[in-house]
Amino acid sequence: MTSERLERLRQALTERGLDGGLIRSGAGLRYFFGYTGSNGLAVVLRDRSVFFTDRRYEAQVADEVSGAEIVTRYRNLFEGLEDSGILAEGLKLGFEADILTYSQAQRLFEKVPRVHWEPLEAFVPSLTDVKTPEEVATLESAARICCQVFEELRTRLHAGMTERQVAAMLQYELAVAGCEGQAFEPIVASGPRSALPHAQPTHRALRDGDFLILDFGCRIDGYTADFTRTLCVGEPTQRQREVYEAVREANELAIREVRPGMTGGELDALVRGFLREKGFQEEFNHGLGHGLGLDVHGLPRVTKDSGDVLKPGHVFTVEPGLYLPGWGGVRIEDDVVLEQSGARVLTPAPKELFCVAA
Amino acid sequence: MTSERLERLRQALTERGLDGGLIRSGAGLRYFFGYTGSNGLAVVLRDRSVFFTDRRYEAQVADEVSGAEIVTRYRNLFEGLEDSGILAEGLKLGFEADILTYSQAQRLFEKVPRVHWEPLEAFVPSLTDVKTPEEVATLESAARICCQVFEELRTRLHAGMTERQVAAMLQYELAVAGCEGQAFEPIVASGPRSALPHAQPTHRALRDGDFLILDFGCRIDGYTADFTRTLCVGEPTQRQREVYEAVREANELAIREVRPGMTGGELDALVRGFLREKGFQEEFNHGLGHGLGLDVHGLPRVTKDSGDVLKPGHVFTVEPGLYLPGWGGVRIEDDVVLEQSGARVLTPAPKELFCVAA
Repeated sequence: MTSERLERLRQALTERGLDGGLIRSGAGLRYFFGYTGSNGLAVVLRDRSVFFTDRRYEAQVADEVSGAEIVTRYRNLFEGLEDSGILAEGLKLGFEADILTYSQAQRLFEKVPRVHWEPLEAFVPSLTDVKTPEEVATLESAARICCQVFEELRTRLHAGMTERQVAAMLQYELAVAGCEGQAFEPIVASGPRSALPHAQPTHRALRDGDFLILDFGCRIDGYTADFTRTLCVGEPTQRQREVYEAVREANELAIREVRPGMTGGELDALVRGFLREKGFQEEFNHGLGHGLGLDVHGLPRVTKDSGDVLKPGHVFTVEPGLYLPGWGGVRIEDDVVLEQSGARVLTPAPKELFCVAA
Repeated sequence: MTSERLERLRQALTERGLDGGLIRSGAGLRYFFGYTGSNGLAVVLRDRSVFFTDRRYEAQVADEVSGAEIVTRYRNLFEGLEDSGILAEGLKLGFEADILTYSQAQRLFEKVPRVHWEPLEAFVPSLTDVKTPEEVATLESAARICCQVFEELRTRLHAGMTERQVAAMLQYELAVAGCEGQAFEPIVASGPRSALPHAQPTHRALRDGDFLILDFGCRIDGYTADFTRTLCVGEPTQRQREVYEAVREANELAIREVRPGMTGGELDALVRGFLREKGFQEEFNHGLGHGLGLDVHGLPRVTKDSGDVLKPGHVFTVEPGLYLPGWGGVRIEDDVVLEQSGARVLTPAPKELFCVAA
């Protein structure tokens, strides 16, 4: 697997007129070399690959990394890169310009001046967006854990619990169910706070009349599923039902209509248009979705301006939401894999409006 | 508070010969403006400050941010910066060069070409390293939760539990105890895996003869404490006792000897020399500590090469460790605040070698 991946990486570099490239992102180091540590740097040239990390990761790198020579004797990896003498004068190498900070890039240019450094954008994401059946299976197992934990948890929630308590239960159940991590901290947003798309859990207690948004992830073997459902506390009002149903229909519309060949922007526009017809102009104030994989926010982008063409093997979220400031909000998020005939849902948890005890 | 902080920020910019600066880091946006969202950008000029975010954060920014005009009408914040017309031609502004990626910096230069952009390194950390008594109290409350959860948990651990199960219990207890987040995922490393300083929890079950490292954080109001203890499973061997005691003495030596005016490098060297005399040359393979605050790894750096002068009000970790590949490792980490007379420990959990049931 790794050697096929490295071959694709080399080909992508060659297509860009480069002699090689520098991989620094966690996703890239994991995808191409199997490395799960936090400090590492790989140089991929036409005829060799060299993997740098420091002595703290000596045992780990020996255990995990294949397909590259391993160098662990340098604490400063850029200095190691220059000092090791593997880079010939005048080579043209790419680097991940959206991963390295401006300072890191300047240090790279300074420490390794013999190389012509070319910035690469979304480079690893562009090579990892189409998933193999094995990768889809891993994402599906992570997605199913999200659903299972949601189903288990929703019957135990009730008015009086705080958002923090709900988040704690959620994290515990996810860990017990086998998540290796959550990739991001869960969003548990109730009442007026559900109108904040990125609210962090507070000590606010759930009360009758609230919407309650639960948005959480589960990572398995480095791959992250991302899942959201919205509940209500007590009996929903007519207006709550309307807003909820609009979001649910928007979610189902996208899942039903998406096909290979559409762009992310077209799918987003379809949903945005539908919600506009329902009378919601500005209340859907974020993108429809994003790619999933080793990064939580990968390719394809499924947003207003995205020209990314959706392809079979793409795995992405479909997460329309409506947010009415001061009143509350609803978001319903599924993960799907795109197949030739359309989307297959990886998160089959039901989408009717569940109520928890007031 | 915010206005005093903004004043110091302006002064630091002026001292660097700048007309103002751009703040993008989460820590900076929180420290200077009270903002806790994830997308934001602040421009601080001599006579005004303008805070940019997008519509998703409209309610949140209105609720949280003081001391700045608020602009939420742009999705692309750099475009907003240019388009809003607040920046006069030829201004000299700093930006956080170790926060913006290379690509982001290039976009900034391109979108806002009328400004001379100057890279700033460790800029926000250099303004936030010395803590007020209120900030120390917040860090102390986070540190005490770490200790309390450790004390509670250690009596419930036993052979047969997996590292993942331990991590799940840990996360649950931290959340219930009031942590708003853990800032990093807990390290639970047992047996030979305890020799990996940054091991992630696996399905490995604890067994008789293991060392077990627990390293976890707790965040309160944005401030993170960071805490490590090492346990053994069953009765320790003579060699295990020796290694453990060496680390414990190293930890206590640093805490006893540290004084304002020393550099981080000097404190690290003191501990490294002590461990070398005990016969450990290479087994302490990471730095002694790091600053704590709104960032988990802030200033001062307490590492081999650090020239950072330790000052009253600095809060940092003291975390010597010894790692013997294939055999196991020990780390003991406390958080301290430096006062005129020396270190005051924020993590008073006991440091004798506790054994869990085999």
